[in-house]
Amino acid sequence: MRNSIANVALSAAFAFIVAVAAPSIATAQEAEDDTAVSSFTLENGLDVVVIPDHRAPVATHMLWYKVGSADEEPGKSGIAHFFEHLMFKGTSTYPSGEFSAAIAAVGGSENAFTSYDFTAYYQQIAPSELPDMMRFEADRMRNLVLSEENIETERQVVLEERRQRTDNVPSSILSEELNATLYQNHPYGIPVIGWQQEIEGLTHDDLKSFYDRFYTPNNAVLVVAGDVNADAVRAMAEETYGKIARGPDLPPRARPMEPDQKTTRDVTFRDPRVTVPNLSINWYVPSARRAEKGEFEALAILSEVLGEGLRSRLYQELVVKQGIASSAGSYLQGAAYDYSALVVYGEPRGGADLETVEAALVAQIDKIRNEGITPEELETARTKILRDQIFMRDSQVRSANLFGAVLATGGKVEDITGLPERLEAVTVEAVQAAARRYLDMDHAVKGYLLPQEGDRS
Amino acid sequence: MRNSIANVALSAAFAFIVAVAAPSIATAQEAEDDTAVSSFTLENGLDVVVIPDHRAPVATHMLWYKVGSADEEPGKSGIAHFFEHLMFKGTSTYPSGEFSAAIAAVGGSENAFTSYDFTAYYQQIAPSELPDMMRFEADRMRNLVLSEENIETERQVVLEERRQRTDNVPSSILSEELNATLYQNHPYGIPVIGWQQEIEGLTHDDLKSFYDRFYTPNNAVLVVAGDVNADAVRAMAEETYGKIARGPDLPPRARPMEPDQKTTRDVTFRDPRVTVPNLSINWYVPSARRAEKGEFEALAILSEVLGEGLRSRLYQELVVKQGIASSAGSYLQGAAYDYSALVVYGEPRGGADLETVEAALVAQIDKIRNEGITPEELETARTKILRDQIFMRDSQVRSANLFGAVLATGGKVEDITGLPERLEAVTVEAVQAAARRYLDMDHAVKGYLLPQEGDRS
Repeated sequence: MRNSIANVALSAAFAFIVAVAAPSIATAQEAEDDTAVSSFTLENGLDVVVIPDHRAPVATHMLWYKVGSADEEPGKSGIAHFFEHLMFKGTSTYPSGEFSAAIAAVGGSENAFTSYDFTAYYQQIAPSELPDMMRFEADRMRNLVLSEENIETERQVVLEERRQRTDNVPSSILSEELNATLYQNHPYGIPVIGWQQEIEGLTHDDLKSFYDRFYTPNNAVLVVAGDVNADAVRAMAEETYGKIARGPDLPPRARPMEPDQKTTRDVTFRDPRVTVPNLSINWYVPSARRAEKGEFEALAILSEVLGEGLRSRLYQELVVKQGIASSAGSYLQGAAYDYSALVVYGEPRGGADLETVEAALVAQIDKIRNEGITPEELETARTKILRDQIFMRDSQVRSANLFGAVLATGGKVEDITGLPERLEAVTVEAVQAAARRYLDMDHAVKGYLLPQEGDRS
Repeated sequence: MRNSIANVALSAAFAFIVAVAAPSIATAQEAEDDTAVSSFTLENGLDVVVIPDHRAPVATHMLWYKVGSADEEPGKSGIAHFFEHLMFKGTSTYPSGEFSAAIAAVGGSENAFTSYDFTAYYQQIAPSELPDMMRFEADRMRNLVLSEENIETERQVVLEERRQRTDNVPSSILSEELNATLYQNHPYGIPVIGWQQEIEGLTHDDLKSFYDRFYTPNNAVLVVAGDVNADAVRAMAEETYGKIARGPDLPPRARPMEPDQKTTRDVTFRDPRVTVPNLSINWYVPSARRAEKGEFEALAILSEVLGEGLRSRLYQELVVKQGIASSAGSYLQGAAYDYSALVVYGEPRGGADLETVEAALVAQIDKIRNEGITPEELETARTKILRDQIFMRDSQVRSANLFGAVLATGGKVEDITGLPERLEAVTVEAVQAAARRYLDMDHAVKGYLLPQEGDRS
């Protein structure tokens, strides 16, 4: 709890790709049946999304702040995530632990996570508990007590979290410096948890001004999913969040963007704890928000055909047919404000070495660039993505996650509901064009995780 | 003119290593003969250094601002250098070109340059022209006219400069991305000239607030070298610069620092214009200001022995003895606020390939780490550094450059005058310790400049 950083964000991101509207999802305008998703905005600027789901007497209450690590000032990395920890301390209304105790008392659960672009807090409870959850969540939006003691205690917790999850994990060490090599100007190059020396240096003033700047109703999105209806949610939200004054308007989230990449870059981490080496090939690509029309959907299909799942080309070729890899695949990050990353990876098996696996990955990349995909592959990928959304929709939390992540990264409800049509519009030519444009080995950033001794072959 | 960016800064930086006090250099306290260097501060905070040099009726007038590209806000890269261009436009007192015309009319010359940590403007004139130079220079410290027209004109000039000096030069393209890979958190990773899209985005407001913030007497250092004396310079400076009101105090120059580097990183640029490949091995090391006592001097001697000049180990071994390289050497950047870089480089000759050259460079690095240097090498390096200062002192501009660069990066006059003693204190053990600590191939960043086709071997 309270310590999920990039992984949760990543899966939320993925959700955008794999989730599309079930027939029951619709915009407020077309909301006629009582399972339609609706959205509205309170007078103080709080965006609200309601996702009715009457199958069980459960509700998910999520509050998303449109602030993540990429919104931090230089030298203050980790502040967004640090703040997520502090939000579990007391307020001027309730002592520390009272909110969590109230959730536990009704058999609920809670969690929170921070990513590059957002910070989210959520509880799963019975629908009857929603007014209480909103009261607590609205309270800590503005009434948090930022004592020096709380700050120092949580600083040690965060530093320990960093040691355990990053500094003690070879793949995380590599991933951190790989990311900083992939993004040379954009703050996505800075880890969400923050650099150690900067976490150590965060002051009370830094945290206070971060809170005052970003924790306001007009910088947040409320998502409520479950056995509820929009009118009731609106009434409850107005009664709690609605009482909070609008904060100052924030300037646009204009982060420094990447210059044109002209080099290839390799990042290598060697460590005695590594027994089997692996490699990844990484490119940044435009986020869904920034991509040209249809381009992000083409990239999603490209990644699906190339390397997602057991029937993908990479798995079939490297793992099944050639038997040189224990794993091989690709993925596309999503639900980000500025850039997503397309990643191809592989790990050798048996007598095969890493160079052989790399050559086989590159051969498949070349093939999809040069020959594109077949109409059958396109159709299968579309079907798989559309099928995946059913599983997604089946989970209340994942559903809420999807809408929250999209809205917190500059998207709209329609970006989700319109996905089937956008997928339908993708052609085999568009997929090949995306492959040619982005999967370029002359502008790739490769990561190698290696044992202490020996070379890549 | 007006377009020297990093190169000038680099040579200024080097100056710190190769320049030491001639017997005639002394601090203000010990100033008894009339060639002693003296320094003082005007009431409005302007630091002044006077370097008398009576050999010829010439004077050098330099004004250094303690602001460079590493002080820019994120997303505003290039603003310090852009501003250097704008400083040659008109003020509310004098139309554009009048200052330059006045210099030309008296047979003088002028120049300016921008680096990571400072921006400097200078003129060489007869000593009798000094009051005029100060009047003009003091005028443009506060009275610059920032018209939209001037900004747009210079933006095109700067963009063209970027195209010519960076985007059209393969080694510069590599160098830019190599630097961004070496520095993953510190702004030294961002090029002094700025990223193209950010130069394009700089606004009148950005420039105006940059000017108001940084172009103040208390953020500047005046260096006057030549046929002058301190009392006369003080009187002239008080009459001109002294009339300008002190600006607001600036916060300390606290830039985001590098996290511990745990990976090795390779950056490769291929280009059809490259006919002979080359490589560099790069490490960042603490700047003179940040290094532990004696460490920077040990690094200077290390670089001297390893690769500076025709008698260095790298040259003798790779170029002379093995005949595999047309060039091979090393250098240490200096006069920086936060970090310097130690760079080892080589270029193959004849039938030798780049891998062979790399292996030979690494062998020499290993040797100096494992075996250190001899007392004779230490003595030779010291003598060479001390001899170099004589040539340095012989050039009025280089002399002024040295003092300006050191003072603009947080140093004092004594940091220069005390160098002979500090060099004397370096031991062979200290040099080997520096080699072991910093020249680590497991934490190196390598740059490869390659022809379009073929591999490194």
